[in-house]
Amino acid sequence: MSEVSELAIDLIRRRSVTPEDAGCLPVIGARLARLGFHIEHLRYGEVDNFWATHGANNTPGAGPLLVFLGHTDVVPSGPEDAWQSPPFEPTMRDGRLYGRGAADMKGAVAAMVVALERFVIAHPDHPGRVGLLLTSDEEGPTNLDGVRRVAGYLREIGERISWCVVGEPSAKAKLGDLIRVGRRGSLSGTLTVRGIQGHVAYPEKALNPIHAFAPALSGLAAERWDDGNADFPPTSFQVSNLNAGTGATNVIPGALTALINFRYSTASTEADLRRRTEAILSQHGLDYTLEWNLSGEPFLTPAGGRLREVVVAVCRDLCGMEPEQSTGGGTSDGRFVAPLGAEVVELGPVNATIHKVDECVEMAELDRLPDLYQAVCERMLLH
Amino acid sequence: MSEVSELAIDLIRRRSVTPEDAGCLPVIGARLARLGFHIEHLRYGEVDNFWATHGANNTPGAGPLLVFLGHTDVVPSGPEDAWQSPPFEPTMRDGRLYGRGAADMKGAVAAMVVALERFVIAHPDHPGRVGLLLTSDEEGPTNLDGVRRVAGYLREIGERISWCVVGEPSAKAKLGDLIRVGRRGSLSGTLTVRGIQGHVAYPEKALNPIHAFAPALSGLAAERWDDGNADFPPTSFQVSNLNAGTGATNVIPGALTALINFRYSTASTEADLRRRTEAILSQHGLDYTLEWNLSGEPFLTPAGGRLREVVVAVCRDLCGMEPEQSTGGGTSDGRFVAPLGAEVVELGPVNATIHKVDECVEMAELDRLPDLYQAVCERMLLH
Ligand SMILES: [Zn+2]
Ligand SMILES: [Zn+2]
Repeated sequence: MSEVSELAIDLIRRRSVTPEDAGCLPVIGARLARLGFHIEHLRYGEVDNFWATHGANNTPGAGPLLVFLGHTDVVPSGPEDAWQSPPFEPTMRDGRLYGRGAADMKGAVAAMVVALERFVIAHPDHPGRVGLLLTSDEEGPTNLDGVRRVAGYLREIGERISWCVVGEPSAKAKLGDLIRVGRRGSLSGTLTVRGIQGHVAYPEKALNPIHAFAPALSGLAAERWDDGNADFPPTSFQVSNLNAGTGATNVIPGALTALINFRYSTASTEADLRRRTEAILSQHGLDYTLEWNLSGEPFLTPAGGRLREVVVAVCRDLCGMEPEQSTGGGTSDGRFVAPLGAEVVELGPVNATIHKVDECVEMAELDRLPDLYQAVCERMLLH
Repeated sequence: MSEVSELAIDLIRRRSVTPEDAGCLPVIGARLARLGFHIEHLRYGEVDNFWATHGANNTPGAGPLLVFLGHTDVVPSGPEDAWQSPPFEPTMRDGRLYGRGAADMKGAVAAMVVALERFVIAHPDHPGRVGLLLTSDEEGPTNLDGVRRVAGYLREIGERISWCVVGEPSAKAKLGDLIRVGRRGSLSGTLTVRGIQGHVAYPEKALNPIHAFAPALSGLAAERWDDGNADFPPTSFQVSNLNAGTGATNVIPGALTALINFRYSTASTEADLRRRTEAILSQHGLDYTLEWNLSGEPFLTPAGGRLREVVVAVCRDLCGMEPEQSTGGGTSDGRFVAPLGAEVVELGPVNATIHKVDECVEMAELDRLPDLYQAVCERMLLH
């Protein structure tokens, strides 16, 4: 069995459902410490985070620094008997490794560790620095104590990240067929529209917030926020939850609550979207409050960026594929690292089974992943 | 203490929260049986109903028949310590009788009983027949086993009601200032709009039912269903409950549910409203299902109806007031009696405190109420 699949199996066996790490990070820390990495375990709230660096001059801010970014936590498995083999008993079958986290993203975490080990063994005095940043809170609802907090800590100690490779499962059908060179921003809001509660038989004494909101909702749903740009699809707006009413069928409710979300391109700014949303609400004369929450600003590593060029070349040379360079999909922890000034590119295994039953990764692709990551290290730091 | 307030106090002391009767009906039955009334206790499901009649030829269908209609059940009191005196300990204070049900409608039920007693004692051989119809399920959510069922039974046995006086609290500020001569219909619907569930980051793979419904909702809320007529205000449409979403902020929901209600005038029919609602939904291309529930058709006792004229004259003569003749407010059990061919008029105490803490009735007005009901008996049957 390959070194990377052995480590992946060890990690998958640990039930590290967010925010549990279940011992994954200490295993990794012990391995990298043995090779001279400087290790920091950063615990925030219930979340375990991990920061390891290696280099001849291994002090914060000494550059250039190439970081691999990942997470050890996984989403819940759902009912275990819906799986063909138990989700936390990694199983090899038909050339695939099955288990929760196989693709998202313990396979990639194992590959990063193995790649870093091989790189520093082959080049003990490599120029610059390499690092590994891991968290046990990527899949949770808020991500408050994960990479967001670590980024704040790194800023405090004067650390600077030049390049960041995120191991999130980016591929569609084959390893190397798609990399992410950016992500849209995510801006959420909790909207409360106030009316006046009353009895349905006396509508003249009430003000139905559902009726009052309807034209504004139409307006928001129909709005074209931007046309996107060369790198991003157009900004999209969604109401994810809408609730009003007491359950009683004869009561006009006093308020309505809507949860809204923008996935936005660099063609719009957060401030634009807030202002335009509020303008539509005000235009319809609503009595409302709207609490905004910025989950992540968009980031983009533009064409010509050195890391992007290298990752594309590695896919081409090692996988024989010209990767699609996408900014689609959800958010990733890359959003917290990009503001540190890093070029961020995401390269990982096929994402077809993530968050589903029978999550799996192709063994052959898993075995190739350390080569890709090691090649990125060599081309970024040695050439 | 007056006879009517003594009986009202006895009834209020009984905790007859829907569907409990708590012994109210047996007390009334015993009193009326003593005076030669024919008594039927009709129990349907958990609900006690009561049907009493009196007349020289007291057989079903023998007319004319004047019926008083009421209910012994009350709405819950809410937190008892919010009341100045306990809701089920009737208390006289400042010329008022306080307690849950004092105004809605144990005071009026007591007045009907006393009026019927006095009438048959004064006119033992009166022409025609008088009756009393009571239920313990008027305030509940469905009213399935109350007057609706009794009306079915009366139809079965060939009973016919000529006139019906409902004792619901109709007055605004003074006894006799408003009577109800009809009620709007109530038509409810449960609407489900289907979309396609998905992740907010991939809106192109989903169909948000909230967004899809928005223009139709605007259309429904803006629609003018009719202009009402001389007897009724315009039909009103309300969405009482609207729910969509899983709670998760990153999931586009797969369906939306709305509870809708029409309070409709005789200027529209149930069929019209259903057809027009569905036309608006279809026009917006929605994938929906809509389950209708007709709670009650509108009814009207037109100007010139003999009962309406007599009740107006009684208010004028005994209260010194020209009553407003209204069709406003919610539904009442009159909706089940009107289809039996009866003229229905509602005359009862001031409704300012009903369903609230410190519900009360003016003692002086309560004492006068049997006189009003007795006068209606005499003018309808003796003249
Ligand atoms: Zn992931
Ligand atoms: Zn009532």
